[in-house]
Amino acid sequence: MVRVGIVGGRGYTAGELLRYLVRHPNVEVTAVVSRKDQGEPVSSIHPWLRGQLDIPISNLNSKQLAQQCDCVFSCLPHTASAQCVGELLDLGVRVIDFSADFRLNDLETYEHWYQVKHPFPSLVGKTVYGLPELFREEIRTANLVANPGCFSTSAILPLTPLIDAGMIKTEGIIVDSKSGVTGAGRQADEAFSYCEVNEGIRAYKIGSHRHMPEIEQIISRSTTQAVQVIFTPHLVPMSRGILSTIYCEPVPSTHLEDWINCLRQRYKDEPFVDVVDHLPKTSEVTGTNRCVMTATRSRDRLVVVSCIDNLVKGASGAAVQNFNLMYDFPEATALN
Amino acid sequence: MVRVGIVGGRGYTAGELLRYLVRHPNVEVTAVVSRKDQGEPVSSIHPWLRGQLDIPISNLNSKQLAQQCDCVFSCLPHTASAQCVGELLDLGVRVIDFSADFRLNDLETYEHWYQVKHPFPSLVGKTVYGLPELFREEIRTANLVANPGCFSTSAILPLTPLIDAGMIKTEGIIVDSKSGVTGAGRQADEAFSYCEVNEGIRAYKIGSHRHMPEIEQIISRSTTQAVQVIFTPHLVPMSRGILSTIYCEPVPSTHLEDWINCLRQRYKDEPFVDVVDHLPKTSEVTGTNRCVMTATRSRDRLVVVSCIDNLVKGASGAAVQNFNLMYDFPEATALN
Amino acid sequence: MVRVGIVGGRGYTAGELLRYLVRHPNVEVTAVVSRKDQGEPVSSIHPWLRGQLDIPISNLNSKQLAQQCDCVFSCLPHTASAQCVGELLDLGVRVIDFSADFRLNDLETYEHWYQVKHPFPSLVGKTVYGLPELFREEIRTANLVANPGCFSTSAILPLTPLIDAGMIKTEGIIVDSKSGVTGAGRQADEAFSYCEVNEGIRAYKIGSHRHMPEIEQIISRSTTQAVQVIFTPHLVPMSRGILSTIYCEPVPSTHLEDWINCLRQRYKDEPFVDVVDHLPKTSEVTGTNRCVMTATRSRDRLVVVSCIDNLVKGASGAAVQNFNLMYDFPEATALN
Amino acid sequence: MVRVGIVGGRGYTAGELLRYLVRHPNVEVTAVVSRKDQGEPVSSIHPWLRGQLDIPISNLNSKQLAQQCDCVFSCLPHTASAQCVGELLDLGVRVIDFSADFRLNDLETYEHWYQVKHPFPSLVGKTVYGLPELFREEIRTANLVANPGCFSTSAILPLTPLIDAGMIKTEGIIVDSKSGVTGAGRQADEAFSYCEVNEGIRAYKIGSHRHMPEIEQIISRSTTQAVQVIFTPHLVPMSRGILSTIYCEPVPSTHLEDWINCLRQRYKDEPFVDVVDHLPKTSEVTGTNRCVMTATRSRDRLVVVSCIDNLVKGASGAAVQNFNLMYDFPEATALN
Repeated sequence: MVRVGIVGGRGYTAGELLRYLVRHPNVEVTAVVSRKDQGEPVSSIHPWLRGQLDIPISNLNSKQLAQQCDCVFSCLPHTASAQCVGELLDLGVRVIDFSADFRLNDLETYEHWYQVKHPFPSLVGKTVYGLPELFREEIRTANLVANPGCFSTSAILPLTPLIDAGMIKTEGIIVDSKSGVTGAGRQADEAFSYCEVNEGIRAYKIGSHRHMPEIEQIISRSTTQAVQVIFTPHLVPMSRGILSTIYCEPVPSTHLEDWINCLRQRYKDEPFVDVVDHLPKTSEVTGTNRCVMTATRSRDRLVVVSCIDNLVKGASGAAVQNFNLMYDFPEATALN
Repeated sequence: MVRVGIVGGRGYTAGELLRYLVRHPNVEVTAVVSRKDQGEPVSSIHPWLRGQLDIPISNLNSKQLAQQCDCVFSCLPHTASAQCVGELLDLGVRVIDFSADFRLNDLETYEHWYQVKHPFPSLVGKTVYGLPELFREEIRTANLVANPGCFSTSAILPLTPLIDAGMIKTEGIIVDSKSGVTGAGRQADEAFSYCEVNEGIRAYKIGSHRHMPEIEQIISRSTTQAVQVIFTPHLVPMSRGILSTIYCEPVPSTHLEDWINCLRQRYKDEPFVDVVDHLPKTSEVTGTNRCVMTATRSRDRLVVVSCIDNLVKGASGAAVQNFNLMYDFPEATALN
Repeated sequence: MVRVGIVGGRGYTAGELLRYLVRHPNVEVTAVVSRKDQGEPVSSIHPWLRGQLDIPISNLNSKQLAQQCDCVFSCLPHTASAQCVGELLDLGVRVIDFSADFRLNDLETYEHWYQVKHPFPSLVGKTVYGLPELFREEIRTANLVANPGCFSTSAILPLTPLIDAGMIKTEGIIVDSKSGVTGAGRQADEAFSYCEVNEGIRAYKIGSHRHMPEIEQIISRSTTQAVQVIFTPHLVPMSRGILSTIYCEPVPSTHLEDWINCLRQRYKDEPFVDVVDHLPKTSEVTGTNRCVMTATRSRDRLVVVSCIDNLVKGASGAAVQNFNLMYDFPEATALN
Repeated sequence: MVRVGIVGGRGYTAGELLRYLVRHPNVEVTAVVSRKDQGEPVSSIHPWLRGQLDIPISNLNSKQLAQQCDCVFSCLPHTASAQCVGELLDLGVRVIDFSADFRLNDLETYEHWYQVKHPFPSLVGKTVYGLPELFREEIRTANLVANPGCFSTSAILPLTPLIDAGMIKTEGIIVDSKSGVTGAGRQADEAFSYCEVNEGIRAYKIGSHRHMPEIEQIISRSTTQAVQVIFTPHLVPMSRGILSTIYCEPVPSTHLEDWINCLRQRYKDEPFVDVVDHLPKTSEVTGTNRCVMTATRSRDRLVVVSCIDNLVKGASGAAVQNFNLMYDFPEATALN
């Protein structure tokens, strides 16, 4: 049994993570840490755990966590997470970090986009980006995995094969993403109150969302020049799901069947990526660790549509998939 | 032109009120007061007002308000409202109060249910309850009208005719109400965030909601003994609307046609009450000042169903209806 | 491995059932029958099955089903289901029937409420009502289990202990239930289209819903006189979940702690019933096989609130729980 | 009083249209025609009309309509509408047509995109496109106005000033639109049932939606070469509203302030177009005839966001605005 702890255990990603961990035959959850609700049973916050995980929410520090846990999932916000992650690594704990602190491998880019000093700059650039479809082997042996951003996953999975195959131009890629509200986390904020969100789709952070450099970094790997992405997130009146509509300029003399074959070929053995013939909707993947995608054409453009559940393939499911790789369990354990 | 002001102008009821007031041919809105967003144009908070009402949100005190307004609508919370209302009345301003401060005509009942000292006890019991269908004549000449609670309106309108006619027993009346989330006001509160409300209907304040004594006070008027009501509110994942399902024990030898005729007879000349033959839904009355109701039978019980838009007939529409009566304008002005 | 088939495999309950069956270590799904979409892979209708169950939807008759299946779940509508169930039983197949055809043990009551001749009257009254918390031992050995109605489960579980203990009067019980829209099944009907349902809660079938006699039959078991229930279902703008608010008159000299202790005592060893201290909401149980309930007081009434996921504890989860009992698997297999 | 009739009077656009017409001081609604629900009062379908318009739904043919109406709004589907419109024009009735039959001024384009023979080809190319902000003078004297498509309005209003001013390149314009479900009309269709739409945003008709050529035709007016638009509509779980996110390549040496000034300048006197500084959401315009838009930058692209209520500025409100122009009433009559 791997002894597992969670820090930042009150949020929606932590709750979804626990849904899978309590079902995992090789996991014992030994600690759930949060600043709020200490002493309350975890199931008072995530009620579906009642009868399955009734340990209290605690206040353990890194040293205490290191005694009780072989592996920790950090659901803390950025910078707070880096601090905790750094300490845990030093104490020999393996970590899967949901924050953005170790996703970008360039310190300057990180500090520019996040407008903070990085608390553990020495680790930057030495971590593994936790997208199993791209970095499976590196993940197996990593002590620190940077779990991808939810929008990033929905964009990187469809874009990477097309860029790697040289099928699309690396300029003018537009990623228009639509997300459910759990993506904003669990919080008291008028802007995310029911009546402000209901019937009111809106775009936000146009040109300034922090998943933009993350997408660019990963999809640029195989190209000589940096790929630029125009990324626009939208908030949709629904709880879960991300749908990304991606517009690319295809390289001349490639056709729809080439594009879709490229995707299909790349993902034919992946357990959690489906290339389909229809236009998918987010509810198809609700509660699953799947990314569903398709390619179509509009005038002279290639349009790719991808769907994930932001809390699963976009966060907690991906984290469990990474965990399974790190501990050599079948990759889909607890995820179906 | 009547010069009108609003205090507590940032909330959903104030926004809805302004929707009607800017359309009213005899009204000039001269002041909108709020503690937050002062200096911002009203239309930045209530965007449908753009181009129609662009005065800034202000910080006027009662004296300043009295100089600019003939009539003030108070959308402040209880106790804060009473303080302001008392001052305005002393300064000769007529007031329509959305709070509960002057709805109950018994000081002890008020202080028991609201657990506060009343700031203006001398006014308690001397105000008019602003339900035009019951108190039309009193409203015409009132200087202070206590606008009814939203649940109260949905229960009082169907219950009053049946009790007045002696058609139902005054014991064991059950009012099971379902409300949209605007009923909770505009606020930053995790419990009313989109993800906590969506897909999650729930009951709240069973046996302790403050509209319970208000309903009882009004429907008891015509009876010698106090009528008791078992009232349960529910929060429904929708923005607007209240549906109340009301269970009554009919007096022997009365039948469905008697009950429905009783309602129909009572409301046949009312412009904003419809007695219908089908089971209504809340969206039928969204954005209207109507109360739609019907009566049915289940086993030996009379079941009445009523629908209102909580922000209109349950708040701001009723307030405008009261205003029209107070200033002798046609009762439906600005409301259709 | 138990070879399992589903008839009526296109609906929401069938889809949810398959979610659990593909996860069940002792089940092989060998047939999914539907009149529509024959030849299509099951995962084209229930997309979360992609990669896990890709058999085509078929058109097998009872004889063919009997060759491929040890156990069949019937998700057909009433009368169609009875016909199929009867044939399968004769061919030695064990059946779990989601329809109402074998829930009522009195032929006359069935034919009165369903306004049809029963296709297999000889079986009526000889079947087991599939609520494990009440009929666990009978279910173990049954060849035919009548899976309960969703509203029925939400009402019977809280009411039975109180009635059995003589804590509440058997008259005037009011069950006011609120259901998500999956309860209406998968269908093309203007009344259940998005725009007609959204923002529009409504009551329906007041006094005439067919779960009413079903509830009465089961909760009357321990009493000498028939218990009558006033049952009102409502359609709520959400996909899943039932919340039932139940009003009872307590027997004199019993108190809130007695009522809640009665429930707690009865269900303390039940894996899927939680008696809690707070007012639950439906999203607490979404995707789980749990019934969560609490008891409160309003004036002189006992008010019980219960929540289930209508597709899980109210349908498919209960069916799997029954299946586990019938085949002597641990009762929670595939359900956590 | 202008005597007005509506054909195709059962749908959501007709209902919304009637909401404004009954409020219009110069209109008498004399006929509402529909194939379904004939004889029923109009208010049984559009309940907010109760007490304001209780005429029965009728079955009048064109000749009968011409006797009762000076002006007819046709809410029929394409081809059915052209037939009716042609007859009415011949009989001297002025018509506002909600269908697409007379929006495209090229017969071949129409017959290609709609895959039908046009029933009244002689009228094609001779009608006025009913977007007052672009064709105000032509509308005043028109006998037939082709009311724009909802997506078209949301795209044309922000794009036209930028193209006319030569600020953006006419290639590679991407319009990513998100619409509420009323856009699909009132219908019994599994795909638009509550449970299929809820929590399930999806793209549809990529590269093949019929508003695409309509947008292109109008925004190409001032350019020498045809402008091509990549248009993708999405269905969002909400009832009303369209948000369009529009990506354009700016002409070199123009900047954000130029773009936003261009829009602001163009619309500064328009009563129903607001150029704002924030990113708008659809609920800001719900129930209003407004189009709200803003311009931002993302990397090297100009991103314009626009919002309308698809049933109002995108359909019925625009129609009333056109009507007001045609009959020389103040343009905003009945629209505020």
